[in-house]
Amino acid sequence: MIDKPHDYCGIFGIYDHDDAALLSYYGLHALQHRGQESAGIVTTYFDEKKNRHSMPMHKDFGLVLSVYDDPKIFENELKGRSAIGHNRYSTSGSSKNPANIQPFRVHYRNGNLAIGHNGNLSNARTLRERFRDEGVLFQSTSDTELILHLISHSREENQMDQIMDALSQIEGAYCLVILTDDKLIAVRDPNGFRPLALGMIDGSYTVASETCAFDIIGAKYIRDVEPGEVVIIDREASDKQEPKSLRLEPKAGTNSSQCIFEYVYFSRPDSKIFGEMVDKIRRNLGKQLAKEHPLNEVVKSSTEDRRPIVISVPDSSNTAAIGYAHENQKAGFDCKYDIGLIRNHYVGRTFISPGQKSREQKVRTKFNTVKGVIEGRPVIIVDDSIVRGTTSRYLVDMIRDANPLEIHFLVSSPPITHPCFYGMDFPSPEELIANKFDRDVEAIAKEIGVDSLRYLSADGLVAAVKEANDSPLDYCTACFTGKYPVPVDFGVEKEENEIV
Amino acid sequence: MIDKPHDYCGIFGIYDHDDAALLSYYGLHALQHRGQESAGIVTTYFDEKKNRHSMPMHKDFGLVLSVYDDPKIFENELKGRSAIGHNRYSTSGSSKNPANIQPFRVHYRNGNLAIGHNGNLSNARTLRERFRDEGVLFQSTSDTELILHLISHSREENQMDQIMDALSQIEGAYCLVILTDDKLIAVRDPNGFRPLALGMIDGSYTVASETCAFDIIGAKYIRDVEPGEVVIIDREASDKQEPKSLRLEPKAGTNSSQCIFEYVYFSRPDSKIFGEMVDKIRRNLGKQLAKEHPLNEVVKSSTEDRRPIVISVPDSSNTAAIGYAHENQKAGFDCKYDIGLIRNHYVGRTFISPGQKSREQKVRTKFNTVKGVIEGRPVIIVDDSIVRGTTSRYLVDMIRDANPLEIHFLVSSPPITHPCFYGMDFPSPEELIANKFDRDVEAIAKEIGVDSLRYLSADGLVAAVKEANDSPLDYCTACFTGKYPVPVDFGVEKEENEIV
Amino acid sequence: MIDKPHDYCGIFGIYDHDDAALLSYYGLHALQHRGQESAGIVTTYFDEKKNRHSMPMHKDFGLVLSVYDDPKIFENELKGRSAIGHNRYSTSGSSKNPANIQPFRVHYRNGNLAIGHNGNLSNARTLRERFRDEGVLFQSTSDTELILHLISHSREENQMDQIMDALSQIEGAYCLVILTDDKLIAVRDPNGFRPLALGMIDGSYTVASETCAFDIIGAKYIRDVEPGEVVIIDREASDKQEPKSLRLEPKAGTNSSQCIFEYVYFSRPDSKIFGEMVDKIRRNLGKQLAKEHPLNEVVKSSTEDRRPIVISVPDSSNTAAIGYAHENQKAGFDCKYDIGLIRNHYVGRTFISPGQKSREQKVRTKFNTVKGVIEGRPVIIVDDSIVRGTTSRYLVDMIRDANPLEIHFLVSSPPITHPCFYGMDFPSPEELIANKFDRDVEAIAKEIGVDSLRYLSADGLVAAVKEANDSPLDYCTACFTGKYPVPVDFGVEKEENEIV
Amino acid sequence: MIDKPHDYCGIFGIYDHDDAALLSYYGLHALQHRGQESAGIVTTYFDEKKNRHSMPMHKDFGLVLSVYDDPKIFENELKGRSAIGHNRYSTSGSSKNPANIQPFRVHYRNGNLAIGHNGNLSNARTLRERFRDEGVLFQSTSDTELILHLISHSREENQMDQIMDALSQIEGAYCLVILTDDKLIAVRDPNGFRPLALGMIDGSYTVASETCAFDIIGAKYIRDVEPGEVVIIDREASDKQEPKSLRLEPKAGTNSSQCIFEYVYFSRPDSKIFGEMVDKIRRNLGKQLAKEHPLNEVVKSSTEDRRPIVISVPDSSNTAAIGYAHENQKAGFDCKYDIGLIRNHYVGRTFISPGQKSREQKVRTKFNTVKGVIEGRPVIIVDDSIVRGTTSRYLVDMIRDANPLEIHFLVSSPPITHPCFYGMDFPSPEELIANKFDRDVEAIAKEIGVDSLRYLSADGLVAAVKEANDSPLDYCTACFTGKYPVPVDFGVEKEENEIV
Repeated sequence: MIDKPHDYCGIFGIYDHDDAALLSYYGLHALQHRGQESAGIVTTYFDEKKNRHSMPMHKDFGLVLSVYDDPKIFENELKGRSAIGHNRYSTSGSSKNPANIQPFRVHYRNGNLAIGHNGNLSNARTLRERFRDEGVLFQSTSDTELILHLISHSREENQMDQIMDALSQIEGAYCLVILTDDKLIAVRDPNGFRPLALGMIDGSYTVASETCAFDIIGAKYIRDVEPGEVVIIDREASDKQEPKSLRLEPKAGTNSSQCIFEYVYFSRPDSKIFGEMVDKIRRNLGKQLAKEHPLNEVVKSSTEDRRPIVISVPDSSNTAAIGYAHENQKAGFDCKYDIGLIRNHYVGRTFISPGQKSREQKVRTKFNTVKGVIEGRPVIIVDDSIVRGTTSRYLVDMIRDANPLEIHFLVSSPPITHPCFYGMDFPSPEELIANKFDRDVEAIAKEIGVDSLRYLSADGLVAAVKEANDSPLDYCTACFTGKYPVPVDFGVEKEENEIV
Repeated sequence: MIDKPHDYCGIFGIYDHDDAALLSYYGLHALQHRGQESAGIVTTYFDEKKNRHSMPMHKDFGLVLSVYDDPKIFENELKGRSAIGHNRYSTSGSSKNPANIQPFRVHYRNGNLAIGHNGNLSNARTLRERFRDEGVLFQSTSDTELILHLISHSREENQMDQIMDALSQIEGAYCLVILTDDKLIAVRDPNGFRPLALGMIDGSYTVASETCAFDIIGAKYIRDVEPGEVVIIDREASDKQEPKSLRLEPKAGTNSSQCIFEYVYFSRPDSKIFGEMVDKIRRNLGKQLAKEHPLNEVVKSSTEDRRPIVISVPDSSNTAAIGYAHENQKAGFDCKYDIGLIRNHYVGRTFISPGQKSREQKVRTKFNTVKGVIEGRPVIIVDDSIVRGTTSRYLVDMIRDANPLEIHFLVSSPPITHPCFYGMDFPSPEELIANKFDRDVEAIAKEIGVDSLRYLSADGLVAAVKEANDSPLDYCTACFTGKYPVPVDFGVEKEENEIV
Repeated sequence: MIDKPHDYCGIFGIYDHDDAALLSYYGLHALQHRGQESAGIVTTYFDEKKNRHSMPMHKDFGLVLSVYDDPKIFENELKGRSAIGHNRYSTSGSSKNPANIQPFRVHYRNGNLAIGHNGNLSNARTLRERFRDEGVLFQSTSDTELILHLISHSREENQMDQIMDALSQIEGAYCLVILTDDKLIAVRDPNGFRPLALGMIDGSYTVASETCAFDIIGAKYIRDVEPGEVVIIDREASDKQEPKSLRLEPKAGTNSSQCIFEYVYFSRPDSKIFGEMVDKIRRNLGKQLAKEHPLNEVVKSSTEDRRPIVISVPDSSNTAAIGYAHENQKAGFDCKYDIGLIRNHYVGRTFISPGQKSREQKVRTKFNTVKGVIEGRPVIIVDDSIVRGTTSRYLVDMIRDANPLEIHFLVSSPPITHPCFYGMDFPSPEELIANKFDRDVEAIAKEIGVDSLRYLSADGLVAAVKEANDSPLDYCTACFTGKYPVPVDFGVEKEENEIV
Repeated sequence: MIDKPHDYCGIFGIYDHDDAALLSYYGLHALQHRGQESAGIVTTYFDEKKNRHSMPMHKDFGLVLSVYDDPKIFENELKGRSAIGHNRYSTSGSSKNPANIQPFRVHYRNGNLAIGHNGNLSNARTLRERFRDEGVLFQSTSDTELILHLISHSREENQMDQIMDALSQIEGAYCLVILTDDKLIAVRDPNGFRPLALGMIDGSYTVASETCAFDIIGAKYIRDVEPGEVVIIDREASDKQEPKSLRLEPKAGTNSSQCIFEYVYFSRPDSKIFGEMVDKIRRNLGKQLAKEHPLNEVVKSSTEDRRPIVISVPDSSNTAAIGYAHENQKAGFDCKYDIGLIRNHYVGRTFISPGQKSREQKVRTKFNTVKGVIEGRPVIIVDDSIVRGTTSRYLVDMIRDANPLEIHFLVSSPPITHPCFYGMDFPSPEELIANKFDRDVEAIAKEIGVDSLRYLSADGLVAAVKEANDSPLDYCTACFTGKYPVPVDFGVEKEENEIV
C-alpha cells in the first residue's frame, strides 16, 4: 500500500563533549537493533584556520562496527564537540539508495544543519505534493528530506524560528535530533509515538532513542523528552541549567499515543523507555499471560515426572517467559523455566538457501532445540508476537522432532491485524496470519501445528503495561486494534521529484 | 612459547548425497562457534566429458554465511556427491595467510586428496624438521600440510596404505576428514582428544565435530567415531552395511583423554559429544557447584525481600546457572534464576576503541546489565571459566553500577593454569589470572572486584561429568592440572620451509 | 579563484535505436579523453506492465570500460530505445562527491528528465544565489543541477516551454543532451563554445561532442549543431524528416566564439569539430609554425651527417610535428620527422612517488627517449602548448641526457596567460609559466632548459585555423589573449545549499 | 597442446641501495609491457631487533601502478637494501591462481631465498614427474617453483652450490633473478633465449629484462648478462670490482639462440637488448622490407596528386613503418609516412561486447582512422606481425571505409607457423592464419581484404637484424621456421602435485 521505505531507526545526539563522535559510535552500536541497514554520524566543527563552521560526516551501509572500522575516522574526519548519529532500518525490498542514509546534512543561507529522524510523517504526501507543484526537487524518498526543505523554504529569518515553522507543518510520528552550528535540538512529536530520552555524561547533555545507549557510554538518564517537546541544548545549558524547551501542540482531538509495540518487541529489555524499564514491562506481560491463561488451563497431561517446561524464543521473549513461569510457580503450579531453544548468532548479511526446503532451512539456520529439555514433557513456548507465522510453524516442527508431550504456544501480545503508519514495518495486512485465518485462533493453532495457542488480550496488554508503568501517558495500539490516533493522508497520488 | 596458529576448528563430511556441498554449508554454519576466521568446502566430482576426477573447492576468510553468499557457488562450482568442510579458528595475532585456510587439497600420483583437520600434532616439530632436512618445502605453518606430505611421501603403493602410513607417524590431537576420489575417511586420534560423530541422512553417511551439525540438516546421530578409529566410507557402506573401520593404537602408556574443556565451554549446549548432551553435562556442573558451594554458604545477607538472584554470563554459562539455581531451590534455598546481563550480538569483524578506556568499553560494547533484576539484591554470577580475568573485572564493575547488595562469582570449572598443546587456544601461562595471583582465590576475587569467588574443584568437575555421562572413556584435564596425557616435542628450533 | 569543479566533459545521445545504451557505451569510450573521472548512461524505458515511463541509469567513478564491465548492465538494467551518456573530467583537488557524476536524472511533475552537460555557466553564481534566497536546496555544486531546478521551477505548463524558459536564463558555455520520456534534445549555447555534432545510424539520430564517437559505432556525420540551436529529436524526426530546431539568441554584443583550444589540444585528431577535421587543423598549425619559424632560423649547426630531427611529444602533438617537418622539407630544408620519445600507456589511477625526486620521476614514468634517434643531432621538439612548464623541463632534461647537438622547443599555440571560464581546466594564472616569467620567452626557454623556444603567434593561430576551416564562425582565444567574449559574474559570495 | 601458463615476464633486481623497493617499482613499471597480469617485489631485510633476516614481499594481480598504490607499502612493508621484482604475463584462459604470482619466496634450511623467472623450461615435465614420484607436493603449476624445489632438495651443503646444482638440471629458456639473505644472483640460460642486462645506479648493481628499466631510474647500462652466465652480486662487488661470474654450459649440440621475436614485437623500442637498440633493429627491418618489396612494386596507381601514404599500426610498428618510408624516399620513390590510425589508450581490464558485431567492435574500440590522411590515396600499412589475422581484417575494413585508393599490407617479419616452447604465448598452430591458409599469401591477403600482402623473408629478417647488431650471437627463429634449438619434452603425461 505504501511503498516508501519506513524510517524506523535509532537516533543519538551529544552536545559539547571531547569525544562527541566516539560516544555517538558507542551509542549507535547499543541502538543497533533499531536499524541494521546503515549508520551515520555528523559532527559540528569550527575550523579556526578557515574561520568557518563545517559539519564533517561519515555514513554508509552496514552495521555500526563495520561502518566505523577505522580509528582514523574519529581522529581525522569526525572532529568537533557535538554530534548526532542515526541507524537505519532495513526494509525488505527497498532498493539500496545511498541517498537515503541518514543523517542528512545541508548548508543553506542560515548555516549548516543536520538531521536524524525516527518515525513516519502521516502528512508526507500532502507536503510532498505541495513542493512538487512549486517545482522543488528531492534527492530521496525520505520524509526527513521534507523537513529540511520545510526549514530551508521557511520565510522566517531566524534559524530556530524556521525549525519551529517546519515542525508546525508536519504530522505523525517523529523523533528528531537536529544539529546546527551552535545547538543540538531534540524533538518528540506531540503524540509521543517514538521514545526519546535525555541524559548527561561528564556535564554534557545527550539524547538517545533508548537508555541502553546511555549505559554503554556511562551516561546518566535524566528524563524522557516529552511528547511535543523541543529541547534546545546550547552553550547556556549545563549541569546547573536545564536546557530550554519549546512546545508543539498535538493535532486537535489527538492524544498521547506511545507505541506499545516498542514494549512488546522492539526496544531492548535493558532500556528504559516511556519512563519505565522494558524488562519490567515484559515480565509483567508474562504475568498477565499467566493470569489470563494459567498453566492448569493450558497443560493437559502434567505429572510429577513430566513437569511442564516454559521456554522462550530467544532472545526477545526471554523475560516474558520467565515472568510467566514465576507467576505460575507463585500460583502453585509446578513448572520450570528452561532453555529449550538455542539461537545461532553467527548471521551474516545474506542467507542463501537454494533448493526446495529453503524456508524451513532458514529457521534451522537460526535455531536448534535442546532435546534433553524438551523430550517427554509438556512444553509451553512463550513468544512476544506472531506476524506471518511461517517462522513459528517451522520452529514448532523442530520442537515436535524433539518429542515433547504437548506443545502450547503463548503470545505476550494480541493478534496483529493492522498496518502501522507511524514507523513500524509490518508486512501487508493480507500476509498477517491473524488476518489470513480471520482471527480464528484455533485455525491459527492448527496452521502452526501446536496443541493450543493463546494470545494476550488487548485490554490485558494495556492494563499490564499501565500496571508496571505509572506514567499518565497513553499508548497507540493501532496494529492490534485498528484505532489510528492520528489521521493518515492516503489517496494522494505517488509522486517523486528526485534528482539522482 | 609456541607461536604457530592453533588449528582449533570444526569439521564436517558427507558421502554420496545429492546436496553434498549444500549440506556441508549448513553443517559448517552450525559449527561456526568452533572457528570464525575462515571456511572451506571441497567436493569430489567426476567429469564425464573429460573422463577424470576433480575436487572443486571454495574457501575464504570470513563466516560461513559470508564465504558462501552466492548460490552460484553451489550450482556451478561445488558439484559432486561427496564433500568435506572446515571452519578455522581465529587466533589473535596470526597474520592472515590465505594458505592456512582449510581444507587442503592436493593432486598427487595416486589422484586427488583433500583433508580437514581439528587438533594439534604434538610431534609436529620433529616431523617438520625431518622434512626440512630432506629439502621439502611447505606452503603453510599448518600441521595439516604435514599430514599431506606424509601421505604423498609414503613409499606405500596403495592410497589407503599411504594414509595409514602417515597416520602411524603423527601424535597428539587430531580429528580428520579426508576426501579421496572414491572415499570419505574420518579419523579420530587414539586418545580421542577432540569429538567426532557419525550420522546418517537420506541413507548417506555424514561426520561432524558436533551433532548440532546433524540437527541443522535433519541427519540422525548414529554413534561417535571412537578414539583411534579410522572410518572408511565408500560405495559399499550403506544403511544396511556399516562402513569399515581400521584402528590406530595409542602411544604406549597413554589412555583415552577426551578434552573436558569441550564440555565446560567450547561445544554448543545443543550438541551431543563424547556420547552425551553438552547441555546435560553443564547442568550437572551447575548442580555440582551447588553441592560444593551451596547458596547459604555463598550469600550473606539474603532476606525475603531481597531474594538472591542467580545470573549467567550469556550465552555459554546459561545452563550451568540454571542447574545451580534449581539445585539450590531443591535444597530449599530461596533464589531465582534471572536474566541480569544482556548481550549485544551485533558484532562486526573489528572493534575499534581509540582512547584511554578502551578495554572497559569493549565489555560495555558486548554486555549491559538489567538494572531492575540486579538492584538491591545479592547477585550470584555463574560463569564457565576465567581465563585472563580482565573481561570478568569490567563485567563486575558494570554489575556493581546497578547497585546489587552483594556480588558472588561462581565458576563451573577449576582455575586454568596450564597451556593446551592439543588444540585449545589459551593465552601464555603468565597471562592466566590464576597464575598471576598464584592460585590465591581471595586475591583473584579482590582483583575482579567481587565479594567472593568460588571455583569448582578438579575432582568435582570430572565426577560431575562422569555422573552425567556413563561412557567408560577418560578425560584430559591438562589445562587445570598440568597432567599432559601425551608428551609434546618442545625444544625443537623453529623452522619454516614455506613457499609464498 | 573559482573552486567549483569544472564541468569539462564529453556528451552523447541517441534516439530510438535497438542498442541505445550499448552505442552510448561505445560513444563514451571514444570520448574518454574528454573526461576520465566518471561515466554515466541514462535510458528511457516504457514499462508496459506498470504502464509508466522510467529512466534506468548506471553511473560511477572510473573509465567507461570499467564502469560498464558487466554485460548484464546492458541486458537487464539499461533497457530502452533512447539514451544519453556523459564522461566527466577529473579536476585535481575536487573531492570525490558521487552526487556530481552526470547525467542527472529527475522525476518531476511533468515526467522524467535527464541531462548531461559540457561547459561552464558564466552566471551560475547569480542563479545559485537567487535559488538560495528562495530556500531551494542543492545536492551538488554542479551547474547542471541549476538547469534542472530552473526547468522544474518554471511556471510554464508545457515541458518544452519549461526547458526553453530555463535555457533563456543561463549564460556561458554549455552543450547539453536532454532526455525526456519522448524526446532527445541537443543544445549548443548561442556562442557555440563547445563542439556538438549531429549524426545518424540505422535511421536513428545521434549527437556527440566529437565525431570520433560516430566512427566507433559506424554512424554518419550529418552536420554540427549550430550555436544557439536547440535540436528536438522526436518520433517525427526521421531519415526523410530533419528534426525541428528552436533558436537561442546570443547575449547582446556577443558573437560566435568556438573554443580554439579544442583544436590546439583537447579534441581527438580523428574527430571533426566545428565543421573540420582536427588532424587537418593541427597539421596546418605545424605548417604555420614552419612559416613563422622556418628550420634554418631555428637550428644553428645542421650538417649533412647531423640532419635535424623533428620529434613530437606523443600523442597530442604528432600531427603538428609532421606538419612542421613536411612544410620545411617542401621549403627545401633537410630534416626528418622521427619518434624520439616513447610514451608508457600503462597508467593506473594513482601514481605514488615518495622521496625527493618525485616530479622528475613522474615524467620518467610516462616517457622515455629513443637514444639512437636523438644522439648527436639537432632536435626540434614540437608540442601543442605549455601550461605550468614543469613537465616540459623534465622532458628536456631527459632528452639532454641522450646527447643531442641542440634542443629547440616549438609550441604550436601562443603562451597561455589567462584562466578559462567556459569549461577548460587551467591552473591559476600565477602558476602558468608564461605569467611567471612575464611572457619573456627567453627566460622561459632558460627555465625549461632549451637552446631556443618559439611560440606560434595568436594571429598566426587564428589565421591557420581559418585557412584550414572555411566556416564563417569565430573563435574564443581568451586563454591566450584575455579577451572574454561573454562576461562572467565574479564577486558573488560563495554559497552552497547542498543536502548530502 | 601445452596448457600450463606461459611464464612470459619482466624481471628486475637491485643490490644494496637505499631505495631498493622503490626503484624496483619504477623498473617494473617500465617493463609493464612484458606482463600485465600481476606484479611482485621481494626485499631482503635484516631485523636488528629480532637478529634475523627476513624477506618482506608485496605482490598482487594488477598493473604495477595499481598493486603499489599506497606509499606505505614502501615506507613500512618493503624495507631493505636489496630487491627483486617480477611482472607476469596474462595468458588468456589461465584461471587466476594467486599462487602463480611471482616472485616466489621460501624459507628453508639455508635461509631465505626468493626467485623471479622469465622463460619456459623445456624439461619441466620430466623434472615434475621425478618429483611427483618422490611424493613432493607443488603449490603452483609454475616452472619457477620447480627451481625452488631443486635448490631445496639439493644435497649440497652450501647455498651457492645448491643453486648451481639446481641450474645444472634445468633446460630451456630462463632468465632468473634470485635473492638470498646476502646476494643478488642473475642468471641467463646457456642459449640466451631471453634478454637480461646489467646496470649500475649510485654505485649499486641492477639487472633488468630490458634497459628501459634502467632509463626510468637513471641507471647506466653496463653490459648484457651473457648466455650461460650466473652473475653473483654481493658485498664485494662494487664500482671498482665487477661481480663474480659462474658459467653454465649449453646442452651439447645447441647454440646461442636469442629470441628474434623480442626484436620484432615484444621489447620496447627504447630498450637495448641482446646488445643493440630495438628501435634501430626495427628501423632496419623496415629498410629490409623496402629492399624486398620496394614501393614501385607494391603500389599500382600512384600519381603526383595521390602520393602513397605509409602508415603504421600504432605503436609497435611505428619505427618499421618510418624505416620503410625513409628507405623508399632515399630510393627516389615518392611517399610519405603519416599517422593514419589513432589508438585509444583508455583500456580497462575488461571489454564487454554483447551483441553480434562484437569482434569488429573490439577493433573499433581500440582504433580509428584519420580520414583526411587515407582518403583517395594508395595506403601501405606496415605491421610487425600477423598472428590470428582477425584484428588485421577488421582494421582493414575500417581503413577501407575511409576510401583509400588501394590498401597494401606489409609485415616486417615472416609468417608465424610454429608454437614457441621458450616462453612466447602464441595461439595453437591451427589458429594461426598462415597455417589456416597453408601459407598461401594471396589467400591470406584475400582473407584480410587487402589488395596485396607481403611478408619479410626469414633470411631477410635474420640478415637485417645481424646488419644492425654486430654481436656474434645467433637467434631463435622457431616460430617462423620450426627449427627448435633445444629439444622439448613432449609426451609426458600431465600431472599436478599441487596443494591448494
